[in-house]
Amino acid sequence: MIVVKVGGSEGINLQLVCQDIASLVKEGKELVLVHGGSHRTNEVAEKLGHPPQFVTSVSGFTSRRTDRETLKIFEMVYCGEVNKGIVEMLQAEGVNAVGLSGLDGRLLEGRRKAAIKIIENGRRRVLRDDYTGTIERVNVHLLRLLLDNGYLPVVTPPAISTENEAINVDGDRAAARIAVALKAEQLVILSNIPGLLRAFPDESTLIRHIKASQVEEYMQHAQGRMRIKVLGAAEAIKQGVGQVIFGDGRIPSPVRAALAGQGTVIS
Amino acid sequence: MIVVKVGGSEGINLQLVCQDIASLVKEGKELVLVHGGSHRTNEVAEKLGHPPQFVTSVSGFTSRRTDRETLKIFEMVYCGEVNKGIVEMLQAEGVNAVGLSGLDGRLLEGRRKAAIKIIENGRRRVLRDDYTGTIERVNVHLLRLLLDNGYLPVVTPPAISTENEAINVDGDRAAARIAVALKAEQLVILSNIPGLLRAFPDESTLIRHIKASQVEEYMQHAQGRMRIKVLGAAEAIKQGVGQVIFGDGRIPSPVRAALAGQGTVIS
Repeated sequence: MIVVKVGGSEGINLQLVCQDIASLVKEGKELVLVHGGSHRTNEVAEKLGHPPQFVTSVSGFTSRRTDRETLKIFEMVYCGEVNKGIVEMLQAEGVNAVGLSGLDGRLLEGRRKAAIKIIENGRRRVLRDDYTGTIERVNVHLLRLLLDNGYLPVVTPPAISTENEAINVDGDRAAARIAVALKAEQLVILSNIPGLLRAFPDESTLIRHIKASQVEEYMQHAQGRMRIKVLGAAEAIKQGVGQVIFGDGRIPSPVRAALAGQGTVIS
Repeated sequence: MIVVKVGGSEGINLQLVCQDIASLVKEGKELVLVHGGSHRTNEVAEKLGHPPQFVTSVSGFTSRRTDRETLKIFEMVYCGEVNKGIVEMLQAEGVNAVGLSGLDGRLLEGRRKAAIKIIENGRRRVLRDDYTGTIERVNVHLLRLLLDNGYLPVVTPPAISTENEAINVDGDRAAARIAVALKAEQLVILSNIPGLLRAFPDESTLIRHIKASQVEEYMQHAQGRMRIKVLGAAEAIKQGVGQVIFGDGRIPSPVRAALAGQGTVIS
């Protein structure tokens, strides 16, 4: 079992990702695809007159400010345009893909954060109307049901809260959770850079290998969105996923390249 | 088996529909929900700077002009905002809903129309870049797989063409196709009027009953969007669905009211 996460940043080539996945599936590989949609969400939110906002938590993680209006736009882009776009591409490649959000069949269930402590202009502030949270349970039954019947699940946030609200969850950590739940051998995380960089954005400073035992030390090298990717990797490795690879989502055969060790390999 | 179609017109109360469906499911009824999203698609298309257009075919049916850009917006609204909104509401009512478009698992497969003959300003014109079509096959396997495992499918257009393109298909006819494929006893079609009206929009002219054998004659009373609803009903009845009921989607317990004969019953 391989779980592939493809980000929603500019520059990622979804067509190449889908072609590569199709060729792996044809070789008999079992696979789940998880995706994001952040860049398009920013564009659409802007056009719809509800521009994106980002907040930084006191622990240093950046995330999207998700009020109820943002959540709707988030669903339009992630579950609508991007998810169905990917399903269409995979179908065209001969893969019988089924797109699902975390709401569907309670695929990704978690806890909504009652309050988010953020830093704004150097000051602490508490947000209480944010719809974000952390996944606590993956509906393995539904994923296995589809996989065992020849369907390839294409999974996207949002998740569903224990109180039945849609919640924005991080896509990388969602993929990590799914990889753990499905006991995946590999988790491939594709973004618009070649992997984990020692000095972002200098691509020549790519870190080629990290020992599983040392992954948390490497958090110091991670910046911005990369921090949460490393956190997801650490969680996955700790809970039994054999290998996490950060690969380049802009190149041909991006999944195969990552599986062959191109990128940052954590094992 | 009951197939419920709820339209996407203004005034329809999705919350009431979901509550009613939940109470039917709790009584052991097996059910599939099909929905639209036309009104919101118009609003969002307007805001995104790609205003909706409608065309009238030479045979007198009105449909949405669906170029590739419209299709994206259509997917945002139908598969994103509306589908996930309904799934969230059903989950809150204790129903384990799974939202699917016709693309997912090739749930609704059809043929894209190579050319659409329309009437524009009194003249005939042919559209060749339109992504619309007619459903020819329903993936009953996927619907049964979900139903037999305790999930309630929430289905929305678009469908997928035999050439693997997303295509806009009529939601009412999609529901009719699904009802036939699942050998449903009843097909309930909820809109923002009380049923089929002899003199639209005068709600006091509600037609209470139509014999199955006479459904095509009644096409003359149908106007605008109602025409395609009657066409879907005729198809469903002809192919073995016991009863088609056009009900009011604005009232409390709209599905139960329709099943009790409130609206236009075709049997």
